[in-house]
Amino acid sequence: MKALVYLGPAEKALQERPKPQIAAPTDAIVKITKTTICGTDLHILKGDVATCKPGRILGHEGVGLIDQAGPAVTAFKPGDRVLISCVTACGKCDYCRKQMYSHCTTGGWILGNTIDGTQAEFVRIPYADTSLYPIPSGASEEALVMLSDILPTGFECGVLNGQVQPGNTVAIVGSGPIGLAALLTAQFYSPAEIIMIDLDDNRLAVAKRFGATASINSADGKAVETLMKMTGGRGVDTAIEAVGIPATFELCQQIVAPGGVIANIGVHGKKVDLHLELLWDRNISITTRLVDTVTIPMLFKTVGSRKIDPKLLITHRFKLDKILDAYETFAHAAESKALKVIIEA
Amino acid sequence: MKALVYLGPAEKALQERPKPQIAAPTDAIVKITKTTICGTDLHILKGDVATCKPGRILGHEGVGLIDQAGPAVTAFKPGDRVLISCVTACGKCDYCRKQMYSHCTTGGWILGNTIDGTQAEFVRIPYADTSLYPIPSGASEEALVMLSDILPTGFECGVLNGQVQPGNTVAIVGSGPIGLAALLTAQFYSPAEIIMIDLDDNRLAVAKRFGATASINSADGKAVETLMKMTGGRGVDTAIEAVGIPATFELCQQIVAPGGVIANIGVHGKKVDLHLELLWDRNISITTRLVDTVTIPMLFKTVGSRKIDPKLLITHRFKLDKILDAYETFAHAAESKALKVIIEA
Amino acid sequence: MKALVYLGPAEKALQERPKPQIAAPTDAIVKITKTTICGTDLHILKGDVATCKPGRILGHEGVGLIDQAGPAVTAFKPGDRVLISCVTACGKCDYCRKQMYSHCTTGGWILGNTIDGTQAEFVRIPYADTSLYPIPSGASEEALVMLSDILPTGFECGVLNGQVQPGNTVAIVGSGPIGLAALLTAQFYSPAEIIMIDLDDNRLAVAKRFGATASINSADGKAVETLMKMTGGRGVDTAIEAVGIPATFELCQQIVAPGGVIANIGVHGKKVDLHLELLWDRNISITTRLVDTVTIPMLFKTVGSRKIDPKLLITHRFKLDKILDAYETFAHAAESKALKVIIEA
Amino acid sequence: MKALVYLGPAEKALQERPKPQIAAPTDAIVKITKTTICGTDLHILKGDVATCKPGRILGHEGVGLIDQAGPAVTAFKPGDRVLISCVTACGKCDYCRKQMYSHCTTGGWILGNTIDGTQAEFVRIPYADTSLYPIPSGASEEALVMLSDILPTGFECGVLNGQVQPGNTVAIVGSGPIGLAALLTAQFYSPAEIIMIDLDDNRLAVAKRFGATASINSADGKAVETLMKMTGGRGVDTAIEAVGIPATFELCQQIVAPGGVIANIGVHGKKVDLHLELLWDRNISITTRLVDTVTIPMLFKTVGSRKIDPKLLITHRFKLDKILDAYETFAHAAESKALKVIIEA
Repeated sequence: MKALVYLGPAEKALQERPKPQIAAPTDAIVKITKTTICGTDLHILKGDVATCKPGRILGHEGVGLIDQAGPAVTAFKPGDRVLISCVTACGKCDYCRKQMYSHCTTGGWILGNTIDGTQAEFVRIPYADTSLYPIPSGASEEALVMLSDILPTGFECGVLNGQVQPGNTVAIVGSGPIGLAALLTAQFYSPAEIIMIDLDDNRLAVAKRFGATASINSADGKAVETLMKMTGGRGVDTAIEAVGIPATFELCQQIVAPGGVIANIGVHGKKVDLHLELLWDRNISITTRLVDTVTIPMLFKTVGSRKIDPKLLITHRFKLDKILDAYETFAHAAESKALKVIIEA
Repeated sequence: MKALVYLGPAEKALQERPKPQIAAPTDAIVKITKTTICGTDLHILKGDVATCKPGRILGHEGVGLIDQAGPAVTAFKPGDRVLISCVTACGKCDYCRKQMYSHCTTGGWILGNTIDGTQAEFVRIPYADTSLYPIPSGASEEALVMLSDILPTGFECGVLNGQVQPGNTVAIVGSGPIGLAALLTAQFYSPAEIIMIDLDDNRLAVAKRFGATASINSADGKAVETLMKMTGGRGVDTAIEAVGIPATFELCQQIVAPGGVIANIGVHGKKVDLHLELLWDRNISITTRLVDTVTIPMLFKTVGSRKIDPKLLITHRFKLDKILDAYETFAHAAESKALKVIIEA
Repeated sequence: MKALVYLGPAEKALQERPKPQIAAPTDAIVKITKTTICGTDLHILKGDVATCKPGRILGHEGVGLIDQAGPAVTAFKPGDRVLISCVTACGKCDYCRKQMYSHCTTGGWILGNTIDGTQAEFVRIPYADTSLYPIPSGASEEALVMLSDILPTGFECGVLNGQVQPGNTVAIVGSGPIGLAALLTAQFYSPAEIIMIDLDDNRLAVAKRFGATASINSADGKAVETLMKMTGGRGVDTAIEAVGIPATFELCQQIVAPGGVIANIGVHGKKVDLHLELLWDRNISITTRLVDTVTIPMLFKTVGSRKIDPKLLITHRFKLDKILDAYETFAHAAESKALKVIIEA
Repeated sequence: MKALVYLGPAEKALQERPKPQIAAPTDAIVKITKTTICGTDLHILKGDVATCKPGRILGHEGVGLIDQAGPAVTAFKPGDRVLISCVTACGKCDYCRKQMYSHCTTGGWILGNTIDGTQAEFVRIPYADTSLYPIPSGASEEALVMLSDILPTGFECGVLNGQVQPGNTVAIVGSGPIGLAALLTAQFYSPAEIIMIDLDDNRLAVAKRFGATASINSADGKAVETLMKMTGGRGVDTAIEAVGIPATFELCQQIVAPGGVIANIGVHGKKVDLHLELLWDRNISITTRLVDTVTIPMLFKTVGSRKIDPKLLITHRFKLDKILDAYETFAHAAESKALKVIIEA
């Protein structure tokens, strides 16, 4: 089968690889129909993810059809349409029982990381019963690819951890795909204001179309001042960090109101300064989270009832044959204006 | 009247001062019967608290009798025995309505800071109806002085923010009075383990007497290693920071388990490193808080039903005349083994 | 001044009454600009509310201008535009400190009940600082009259107690003004389905316009069957009772799914059957509540940001002179299709 | 093997039955070492549980050793010591993912009900990985039998649903084994008062030994009056119903304070009166629940750290050969003063 393989820092290729086999009774083999590329895949290609070794098939998102189901799989049978969670959950360990699937002792984020992933014609999914979700007939597969990772990530790490509430004021720092996923799902809770902050006017324009009530281009170094003016000097109830660098985390600390929350989504590569000398008495919370994808069933219902349209995030489409072009497009988002790209297998 | 007055960095004196007067219809004048000294008073004397100007009477804790009540005070009348909250609450502003009295727009921590405090024969209490609490007859005044600040601080900032739960594992970093207050109140929730960490063996011995299930002297630089061994490599559900320096906050980051909470109580004078490069995917929370004293009524009930004995924290007693001695004793706790000192006015 | 006075069961009159006076330092006198009539006023007129004695000026909703403020009122001054909460809160008692203003030991629902109310040119408001809310300039007074009682009631007793969540299925039993208020505010949380149940096709049509995703006319006695079919046999996550009779509470018990909530808003005049023989093992909750109006500040923000349009509830307008006509219109809602009527004073 | 078999209303026998076999890859066969009898077993013998048919081996509690593990069982191997949950959980269905194991679509309470149970030498446990719990070496098996059902039931249905908090006042209506289990676990949260209500002075005396702060014998019909006097007319924050008849549920309604919770544990055979005409405006909650046993891991830790001693509940011990005597003893608890009886297999 064809598969996109990581070959070491800055090296990847579309290669012919053997079709995966059932390895445990709880495994399923899924024939991929649609997958996508994540910012994390680019991190791997930079050599930033030590757990991912050369030779690995990338990808942790996608929808497809059950090709084979192991003898202990009871929830699915060949031919069933399924959504693949980016996080694999055994359903049994202490973390899974607390719905912290991200920290499953034998699962978590392993697809396209420590085991072969979804950017291929077929993928082996361990613990299929608790790591796949049935797709209702009639649902748009493209839309649902957004539920493998990006929408639950924006929702769980940003919106739920950020305790977004009706009438509240929210700032989202970073208007890339993940910040936009937070923006779309924050609206489930009807905040009064969602202020989007980014350096790129195009992305901010997208954010306004997606429901942001205001935007700030932080290129002039005056984002804090501007936001404080907008909020009557009060700051925000929720600051969602969706970039992953010290400067944006610093910004969040400067704009959060007493009693507020900084919900971190960004993947950070280095430590940041935490200004406890200013924040120790401000009654704030800071949260971190790797997505657990526990909200996939809830998100299914919000998509089905048109409370959210995940397809807004899709800007480009490619065949699996052209996945190298897809990577080019996604990696140069400033020029291509790409958000999420769909790969059809 | 006699009063302990801050005269500038490292300077204080017991002076004769005029008795305070009702200044607003919601004020009360309280005749102090017992007060105490807080670590924050020592911070002021180091010159670290810019809002507190020379000439200020110190102190924000105490019990006493209503001497006069302004015309709009309805909950108290002269002669009533009252507990003084360290935090003044108007009861009307947005923050007070959210029970975040610490951020009351015209109150908060003002006693012994921006207005004269309780280390005196009399004190003026603004918003008396919402800043004083009636003392039931028969209750020990000494015990209740611990409810002005230290017990609600340990409980709200450490235990409640730290989400201590039955069966959980808790570490408290810092076995001074505030860490011990967290230790005493953590036991309301029956955690399985409370591990106390400090540099002073005497304080750790006190902690064991107060209910700690284990202790670690971190002087050897191996506290993380020792704790991880104790917890089977898992770390703690709740890490309570009760010191206020970068090293102890660093320690908390190294011992918190995935899904856990770091609850900061310490008053920090400088920024700390936050290792988001390690913590971004660990599903943790970090909380800060200035005590709101919203739990004073709950704490009254736990004292009344003997679920906690606040007098355990009291090591020394002085008359107001000897308050300079009391400061000496409290400031040199390593030698004096002082926890909290009672001043009788 | 003119005032609508309750004279005993089925008797009321528009009378001339003396203008109210400040009686306590925390009182304010408000000049009413707009008020409305509540279903509870009709209950009083039926003689169902024993606490309300003949001679009482009715009404507990409204907006107006501060005419006089007592000496202890600090948040308002003459000329300020204010919203009147239907519930009076001292801000000091144990219940107020828990934000349970409905059970304020010296307040609660007293306006137009145990003290004179708002269907008059002027009204005396006790505890003005904590029972009135400032109206931002530019806001629609008519819209805000809906925040005195009906919207917080639907929201707090129905939506918040009912734990409405994104993606969930909600049934609202009763499509009168209060059920419609629950319907409007439930949408803050983006439930997937809101099924409205009533006997009146007109009211159900209004509900569809207000955002209900489905409606059931229960006149045929098959509402349970129909709803179960709609929900795939599962029932609803939240059943909101907005009528107040045994039959509708019975219906809620039959449609609530395991793990769900029955949130009662209805004012019940007699006991109901609770089928614990069927429900003891269904993991459900049943909640009751008299509105606390703690969400008025949150609702202000949702109105200001156009997340909700309270004016949808207003169907008729009258001058205070014509308040008897207004009562006629409101009392015969089936014919007049009245929801809420505005009275201009 | 020997097994206690239900033969129809009022009929049971100790019979020889074939040893159970693995029927699905996720099954395990457990060799029982200790089991017990539950009040529900007596209900079955009265013919009250329609789902349980003659021929069924009774029992849903116990500890034992893994005898065989199906090929898909990964958490256990032969020889492992395990605790059996009274509720079987597939770990996959919507309810299991919400930790509502009691409503597992293919599990729930099936042991000793719709499939053969634990009052035998061996038992087949479906979904072994998610329905059994490993027993640490050194733990007392007798104590842990109390974690199969009775302690999680008292804790989850009574204490957690009842939101017991430090300083609160709790009433437990019914001082039988299940009420005593609620009493023991309520103390995890340090309520100020726990008032036990029953008709039997012996059981009330036991309750006092187990930590009740007060007791009321309700035989004189004045329980409400007495309790109201004890609580200064306020009533209780939490009323736990642990009997299951209309009179005791009525009592709970009369003693719950505004803002309080009635947490039902009792298994009710008929409907009850709910006095919504009195309670609609009292801001109360009523909860029902079949135990989910999600707190077994937490309870393990509280037992391990001696926060609770489950052996307090054990009054009698029998060999499996003498299980008919054990039933006699348990069924006549008033004379035998039995709480829980241990059966050794």
